[in-house]
This record gives sequence, C-alpha cells and structure tokens, in this order.
Amino acid sequence: MLEILKQEVLEANLQLPKHSLVTFTWGNVSGIDREQGLVVIKPSGVAYVELKLEDLVVVDLDGNVVEGELRPSSDTATHLALYKAFSDIGGIVHTHSPWATSWAQAYRPIPALGTTHADYYYGEIPITRPLTQREIESAYELETGNVIIETFQKQDLDPVAMPGVLVAGHAPFCWGKNAEEAVHNAVVLEEVAKMAFNSFQLNPQIGPMDQFLLDKHYLRKHGPRAYYGQK
Amino acid sequence: MLEILKQEVLEANLQLPKHSLVTFTWGNVSGIDREQGLVVIKPSGVAYVELKLEDLVVVDLDGNVVEGELRPSSDTATHLALYKAFSDIGGIVHTHSPWATSWAQAYRPIPALGTTHADYYYGEIPITRPLTQREIESAYELETGNVIIETFQKQDLDPVAMPGVLVAGHAPFCWGKNAEEAVHNAVVLEEVAKMAFNSFQLNPQIGPMDQFLLDKHYLRKHGPRAYYGQK
Amino acid sequence: MLEILKQEVLEANLQLPKHSLVTFTWGNVSGIDREQGLVVIKPSGVAYVELKLEDLVVVDLDGNVVEGELRPSSDTATHLALYKAFSDIGGIVHTHSPWATSWAQAYRPIPALGTTHADYYYGEIPITRPLTQREIESAYELETGNVIIETFQKQDLDPVAMPGVLVAGHAPFCWGKNAEEAVHNAVVLEEVAKMAFNSFQLNPQIGPMDQFLLDKHYLRKHGPRAYYGQK
Amino acid sequence: MLEILKQEVLEANLQLPKHSLVTFTWGNVSGIDREQGLVVIKPSGVAYVELKLEDLVVVDLDGNVVEGELRPSSDTATHLALYKAFSDIGGIVHTHSPWATSWAQAYRPIPALGTTHADYYYGEIPITRPLTQREIESAYELETGNVIIETFQKQDLDPVAMPGVLVAGHAPFCWGKNAEEAVHNAVVLEEVAKMAFNSFQLNPQIGPMDQFLLDKHYLRKHGPRAYYGQK
Repeated sequence: MLEILKQEVLEANLQLPKHSLVTFTWGNVSGIDREQGLVVIKPSGVAYVELKLEDLVVVDLDGNVVEGELRPSSDTATHLALYKAFSDIGGIVHTHSPWATSWAQAYRPIPALGTTHADYYYGEIPITRPLTQREIESAYELETGNVIIETFQKQDLDPVAMPGVLVAGHAPFCWGKNAEEAVHNAVVLEEVAKMAFNSFQLNPQIGPMDQFLLDKHYLRKHGPRAYYGQK
Repeated sequence: MLEILKQEVLEANLQLPKHSLVTFTWGNVSGIDREQGLVVIKPSGVAYVELKLEDLVVVDLDGNVVEGELRPSSDTATHLALYKAFSDIGGIVHTHSPWATSWAQAYRPIPALGTTHADYYYGEIPITRPLTQREIESAYELETGNVIIETFQKQDLDPVAMPGVLVAGHAPFCWGKNAEEAVHNAVVLEEVAKMAFNSFQLNPQIGPMDQFLLDKHYLRKHGPRAYYGQK
Repeated sequence: MLEILKQEVLEANLQLPKHSLVTFTWGNVSGIDREQGLVVIKPSGVAYVELKLEDLVVVDLDGNVVEGELRPSSDTATHLALYKAFSDIGGIVHTHSPWATSWAQAYRPIPALGTTHADYYYGEIPITRPLTQREIESAYELETGNVIIETFQKQDLDPVAMPGVLVAGHAPFCWGKNAEEAVHNAVVLEEVAKMAFNSFQLNPQIGPMDQFLLDKHYLRKHGPRAYYGQK
Repeated sequence: MLEILKQEVLEANLQLPKHSLVTFTWGNVSGIDREQGLVVIKPSGVAYVELKLEDLVVVDLDGNVVEGELRPSSDTATHLALYKAFSDIGGIVHTHSPWATSWAQAYRPIPALGTTHADYYYGEIPITRPLTQREIESAYELETGNVIIETFQKQDLDPVAMPGVLVAGHAPFCWGKNAEEAVHNAVVLEEVAKMAFNSFQLNPQIGPMDQFLLDKHYLRKHGPRAYYGQK
C-alpha cells in the first residue's frame, strides 16, 4: 500500500514545476498513511527533474526515517506537526510560489474577494504571527508547524475548509485530503493571491466579499449539498 | 447539424487552456442552434485535457438535458438566460481569467482607453451590481444571467457591440456570433483588462478615449463600412 | 530581388508571435526596396500561423497594389508616410505589444532610465499628441503617420537614433534599417517599457539617467566608435 | 583542464535563456581557472542559440586574449576586476534580467524580506552609487567593476555571503564558486526582486526581516552547520 502512496506523492511533487509553483528545489510534498502512521516525503534538495520513486523518504510521526537512502525534506518537522494536529488531512505541500510568498512577506492575510477564492478557501486565508527568536533558534521547523496550529486555534479555523496558510516572512503551506489535492489547493492559492493583489491595486478600499456569496460558492463545491462536477 | 455545433463547441472549449484563460476546470463554452432551440455546453468539472466530443451535453432552453451522459456546466442557467435575452448571439464563454477577474473583484468597469479595446468592445465594459442575498440563495446561476441582462437594459447596451461583461465579485462572461468568436472576445477582454490595469498604474487620472477614435476603430472592423481584413 | 525582401518581411512577421508581441493578427511588418520604391507588407487580418510568402502584398509609395491577391494591412498608409519622411529606414513594424501599449494609453513617453534603454533608444521614447477628430475622420492611417512625423520634427529627433514611437491612445510603431531590425527594436521597446513601469512603481520620483551614461551605452553599440559585438 | 571550464561556462551561458534571464544577447557568463590565472568568457554579441564551445574566449587577468577567434564580451573588464578583488569566487554572470534591472533603475537596494532571500543572500542586496562622468568616459567597464568593489568595501560585505549586486541605472552582476552557481544566484536574485516588488506594493511600510530568521535560513544552507540538502 505504501507503494501507492509513494506514487501519489511522487506525482504530486512533479506537479509543482508543471504549475510553475517552484524554482529549483524550493518546495516539497508529503502524504500520510494514517493507519500505519507513516509519512512519505520528498528528500531534501533533490531536483524535480531527477526525482524518482526510490528517492522518497518514509518517516514515522516522530521523524524517524523508516525507509529511504536520502535525508527527508528539511521541512519534515513542520509536516509532521500538521499531520498530528489536523487529523483530517492526508497530504501537505510547501512552496515559495511567488504571489503567495509576496503576501507572506508583506505580513498580510488574503481576504476573500471573489468566487474563485470562495470555491476553495472558506474565508480569509490566514497569516501566522512572526516566529520569536527563541522559536527559531530552538526547533525552527517544528515551531513553524506549531505557529500554524496556533493560528488555526486562535482564529477557530477548520483546516478542511481552510486548506492553506501563509507563514509570516516565509511562504505558504497548503494541504488536502491527499497529496494531489494539497497541490491543487496550492495552485489555487497562487492564482487567488495574484488576483487579490491586482484587485487591491485597482481599488485599495475593497472589503471582503459578501458572506452569502462566499457560502454559496464554497458549498456549491463542498459538503453534502455540493452540485459542482460529476458526482 | 448538431455534430457541427458540437465540434465547434469542443474546439472553442479547448482554446481556453491554449490562451491561458483557465486554471483547472474554471471555465465553460456553449453554442446554440437557434432553429432547434438547443444548446451544446461543456459538462461540469471535466478537465480540458480529457474533454471529448461525446462528453458535451445538449440541453433545451428550459435546461432539460436532451443528450449526454454527464451533468452540464453548473453555470448552464446563466448561459440559457443570456441566449433567451440576447437573440443575436450564438456562443457564450465563462472563465475566471485573471486580469478580467481582478477588475470584477475590484468592482470596477473597464473604460475604453485605447484602440485595442475599441477594435472589439464599443465602449466601457460594464460590471453588474452585486447579487442580493435573496438572488444568490434562490436561483443563483439564473440570477447571474438576470443581473447581466439588467445591466445591459439599464445602460442601454447592445450585446453585439458589447460582447462581454464583468459579474461583480465573480468573473467575466463573453459572447459572440458563435462559440469561436465568444472565446476570441474573451482573449481580447483579458488583454484589454491587463493593459488598462497597467495604464491606470502609470496614470491614475486618465479618462476614456475620445469618442471619435472609439468610433473609428470599432467601425473599421464592424458593420457595413468595415475595411479591416480580407472580406 | 523582391523575393529576398519578401522573405525578410515574412520572417520578420513570424518573429512577432515568437516574441509574444502580438495577439491574434494585431501587428504587421513591412520592408522597403528603396531603389524600386516598392514596399512589401503583411496582408490585413491574416493569422500568423497561416501566413505564406505569396500572401504578402507589394505596394508602391502611393499605396497602389503592385502584386498580391490580398488586401494590404489596414495600416499601410502609416507605413508609407513614414518611409517617405524617414529616408534612412528600411523596415517598419506595428504591434499592440502590451507594455508599450499601456504607456501609449497612459499618454506618457518612456524616459531613458537605464542602460538597456540606452543601448537602442537614444533618449526618451516619444509619444504623439492625440489625433484630432478631423484627422481621424478624414484619412486616419495617413494622419497617424503624419502625427508621428510631426512629433519627430517638433522634438528634433533623428529616426535612426530613436527607432520607435508611441501613438497616443493607440500603440507603438518601430523601425530599423530593415524588417528584422525593426522587429528587434520592437522587442527592446516592450522590454524597456516593462522595466520602466516597474521602476516607476518602486520609485515614482526617478528622473532620466545621466546623459553621459546614455551617450556611453548608445555609442558603444552604434556609430563609428562602437565596440560591442563582432564587427 | 580548460576544456572542463569551457564546458561549464558554455552550459552556464545556455542556462540564461532557459531561465528567461536574457533577451537577445543581453548577458554573459565567465569562469576562472585560478591556478592558471585564465578566464573563459562569452564572446560579445553572439546569440545563445548559436553559441558553441569554440566561440568562447580565453583571456588572462590583464584582459589579453589567450585563445579564441572572437572578441570577448564588452563587459570583460568588469569580470576581471571582480575576479581580482574577490578571491573566493569562481564564476560571474551579468544579465539585464527585468526584475533586478527594474530595482537598479529605481536606485533601490533589495532588502531581505523573507526566507527565500535569506536562503541565498545574507542581507540586503546592495546597489552601487552611480558612476561619475569621468569614470564612464575613461574606462567604463573597468570602473563598473571598481564601483562594485567600492560598494562591498564601504558596506563591509563578504562577496561569498552576498553573491550579487545591482549597478545603479544599469543591471545586476552575480557570482558564485563557479559559473553554474553564479547563474543559480542570478535566477534567485530575479525571483527575490520580483517578490520584493510585490510585497512593497502590498505594504510599502515593511522593514527588513528579523535578523534571527535571516541567520537561521542562511546558515541552514551555508557553512559548517548547514543541514539542507544531501551532503
């Protein structure tokens, strides 16, 4: 079964350059097998064009390497913290995609301005507080996960309805029910970040979209009353 | 004859990713057979790379599926409303193309600033009012069509000379004498939206272009005195 | 000999989509045979992917079609006016390339801000005044050429050292010693227009570059003391 | 051994168009053999698509051509000045990449705003003062190198930890331990310049990132305590 997960994680990683979300090796995707408590993740610093199935690293939820010759992504501790806190997610992706990163560097969350946003993210996409010096110098990647979790707790956000976050001064993390959906949400985030940037340049005063339009679009695609698509 | 229409609608749909107007499945094109009162439209949520002729759905003007295994686009009711109100159009396209959508999210119409605009859109490209909660919660897609029609009525616009609109907080709809021309106009809208964005950044005070220059360029390409092209 | 010119004009036209300077048929390139007084120009409204050598139209300097089955570009009168006024140019190109057009729509000339600009355009790239209603309604394309010529006369500009112009509310025209160089200059204009846009966003107060840096870069590439390249 | 260096320099030059860092011939890469005191550099004005191994020019540190039929890059004197002053670098690249050039034209250094920047550039990317008329008219390319060196001396910067610079009113130079790493850093600079531009548009008040976050990311990838990647 882990072979299927590995294949999914490989394919999801390869989607990153196809969707222009990464430069060089700036990104990583993982997927989890919840039953076995094992995570498959991209190795650190390996180029996407060279990435093969056998390069993927299997780690347990404590970060021990269970299988694989290479070092796992340097962001592994962030992924593991999120899998432990957000029990309904099955895949995570981290990129430095330029539009989302531009917002993260500007210390601004991305308000829901239109239906494209509402189709995937049920409200304003949050941004974490900056990490403290102590957090950065002690266990940086773990604390990156912790500050994301703190952000969701403080704002009472559901990670299923809000499948992404901006880490202040850094870049986005996104997730989904599996690795493919995580990448899908990362593509959407980038598109939404670009359009929100443009909209604010055209009209700095715009507020968030009407709640009932947000509800309509999100629920048209998600949950028991969804009627978008073929199923 | 519907086979020809289906082929046109298929090809027009496939033009959307080629012109970078869509991400994933965010868009749909339809075409109408006015004599039979039948509309061919893209199925909901099907990827463009997988879209085949037999996936297209045929509906009548009341929205009943006449042919096809798949569900029609979730925006079908909008298309049908427009076909009923705008008797001279033969094809409709909806996308979330980023520049046009950025204007829609900023609640701004796109003024005619130059001859590129004037060659296709005879004046300012309008934006609808936001839909009310009641409209959204009752028959959202139908009401989206209705608010477009209302916009054209209130501003006394001719849908042939103004082949597109921005839906506030949402995205554009464009149309034309057939599906191909509808997509052509959607490409133009995106280009015009991008350049108008840039022009306003360079000079926030610019007003619309001179009416006589608008007339010259629009009528050079359209109507009995046109002299652009080979016919 | 005209066959060679036709081949050059064909290739120069095909460079426009390769360099992303045109959408659909929005552009045209011509070249002149000064001895015979004949101009080869793109036919009006023909798609670049379908353009063949035999589609090109040969006109004399009065605009009479000397050879070719198709109508010449609707902008032919502009080209002819420029060839007559600027005796040292051998090729002309018109596009609606988006960055240059954005400046034209904003009614702003493009100041020389850096060495990229200085390598090709010896000073601020000028913009014409808007055409009058009378000019537009009488002989629009001819008057477009005339207003360009007027701009160069009033500003005492040398068309060899300033191989392009923005037509207010419209788009750029560029030229060069032949069709290929004209397109080369159109590519440079687009790149320079994009970077000047960005620079002004970063620093609205910047003035033009130092005259001695402008001189250095322009004369490093042009004229008897040039030392760039292999000749 | 110079054959290996030539191959590296050729490949690094060919990476420039692949990463969209150059238009036409606007860029050049060199590499140095420190033992022999010889530099391999791109010839002036040769198109990348035509560039072959035997076109590369070998010069000594005084600028004498040791091997090669073609003229070396017009910027050779700048490269040589940098190799002489910065003893730990092995490759240099100059481009007019649009985002970095836009900052250079705006006379603004690029502050470190996020972890993408911190992963490669250990602090604000500096900009030189403008060259004086005397410097430009005497030995322009040499003085370009000198003003870069002066900038690093005055700001007490380590060229290994700060592998790039903006030349005011001109464009960037980058470097690295070899030609490949120099180009890598040029790609990063362009990406960082783009995102910093966007971030300032979103929030003109942002200051530089926290020093401890900058330290963490730079040292995660560089120096004895690095733990990114597979070595």
